[in-house]
Amino acid sequence: MRKVTFGVANSLDNYIARKDHAVDWLLWGKEAESFMTEFWKTIDTVLWGRKTYEVAMRSGGTTSYRGVKNYVFSHTLKKNSDPNVKIISENTAGFVRNLKAQDGKDICVMGGGEFAKSLFEAGLIDEIGFNIHPVLLGSGIPLFLEMKRQIDLELLECKPFKNGCVLVTYRVKK
Amino acid sequence: MRKVTFGVANSLDNYIARKDHAVDWLLWGKEAESFMTEFWKTIDTVLWGRKTYEVAMRSGGTTSYRGVKNYVFSHTLKKNSDPNVKIISENTAGFVRNLKAQDGKDICVMGGGEFAKSLFEAGLIDEIGFNIHPVLLGSGIPLFLEMKRQIDLELLECKPFKNGCVLVTYRVKK
Repeated sequence: MRKVTFGVANSLDNYIARKDHAVDWLLWGKEAESFMTEFWKTIDTVLWGRKTYEVAMRSGGTTSYRGVKNYVFSHTLKKNSDPNVKIISENTAGFVRNLKAQDGKDICVMGGGEFAKSLFEAGLIDEIGFNIHPVLLGSGIPLFLEMKRQIDLELLECKPFKNGCVLVTYRVKK
Repeated sequence: MRKVTFGVANSLDNYIARKDHAVDWLLWGKEAESFMTEFWKTIDTVLWGRKTYEVAMRSGGTTSYRGVKNYVFSHTLKKNSDPNVKIISENTAGFVRNLKAQDGKDICVMGGGEFAKSLFEAGLIDEIGFNIHPVLLGSGIPLFLEMKRQIDLELLECKPFKNGCVLVTYRVKK
C-alpha cells in the first residue's frame, strides 16, 4: 500500500499563505532543501487541491510537476491540455483509495485545509509533515479546517533548523 | 523590565481545549513537569483571561494560584473574595505595561486566543511557549484568533518529548 503524505510550510498560527496567497514570509535554507530532495525521491504521484493547483500555476509559470503524475481534484476545472495532469471531478476518496492500492512510489498531497480535510476525514492520509515557520501571520489561508473527527498522531521526527523553522513529521494512527 | 510569557498546551491544529472545554487529550510526563517546575520559579504574577480563569476555577476547585499575584481581566466579573485575586476591568494594556515596569519576577499569561490577541496586538508579550500535542482535535477553543498584525518570532528552544509532544519557545521580535 502506497503511503500518502500531506506536507506543507506553515506559520506557527497555522496559515499556509497570506489572504492574497502571498508566501513572501517563507524561509529557505539548505536544511529544508535537503529534506525535500530526499522526500521527492520517494514520490511519483502528486494529488492537488484545485485552489493550490491554480495558485501554483499562476505563480510558478510551469504547467505541472515534471517527473511525477499530477492529479487535480476539482468539480469545476475543464480537461487540462498538459498530458502530465489529470483532472479528477468525482469520488475523490474512491480514486485515492484505488491509487494507494496500485504499485508505485509514495503519494504527496499539495493542498490547503479544505482538500486535506476531505482526505483526513476519509482516513486516507498516512503521514503529515510541517515546516513550522517562526512567525504569527495573524491572518491568511488556514492549514486546518474544522473536522468531524479527531486524528491521533505519532511523532516521527522533530528537527529545528538554523533559520528558526521547526520540521515535524507524524504518522497518522489508524 | 519584567518579561511577559504566554504559554499553553495545544493540539497540532492549535486548539487549547475541546468545544466543551475538555482537556482530556492532554499528555503528562516528567519532561513537561520538570520544564514547568523551572518555569514557575521565574514567575510571581499571573494574568488571566476571564474565560480561562472561570474554566480553571470550575475544574480545579481551587481559588487561585497560590504564591503568585493573580490578575483577572474582565468587564463583567465582580470583585473576588479571594485576597489573592484582583479583577481588572479597564485598560488592560495600560495596566500590564505598568506591571512590567515594576520590580518583581516575570509574568505569565493564562488565557486563550482572545486574551492573548489583545496582548499581542498591544505588543506586550515577550516570549511564547507551546507544548504541541500529537493530535488533531478537529475542533475546539482556538489558540490563535485573527490579528491585525504579523508577529515575527525567534526560535529559542525546540524539544521533542518521549510522549510525542514538542515543546517550542520563541522570543517575540520587537
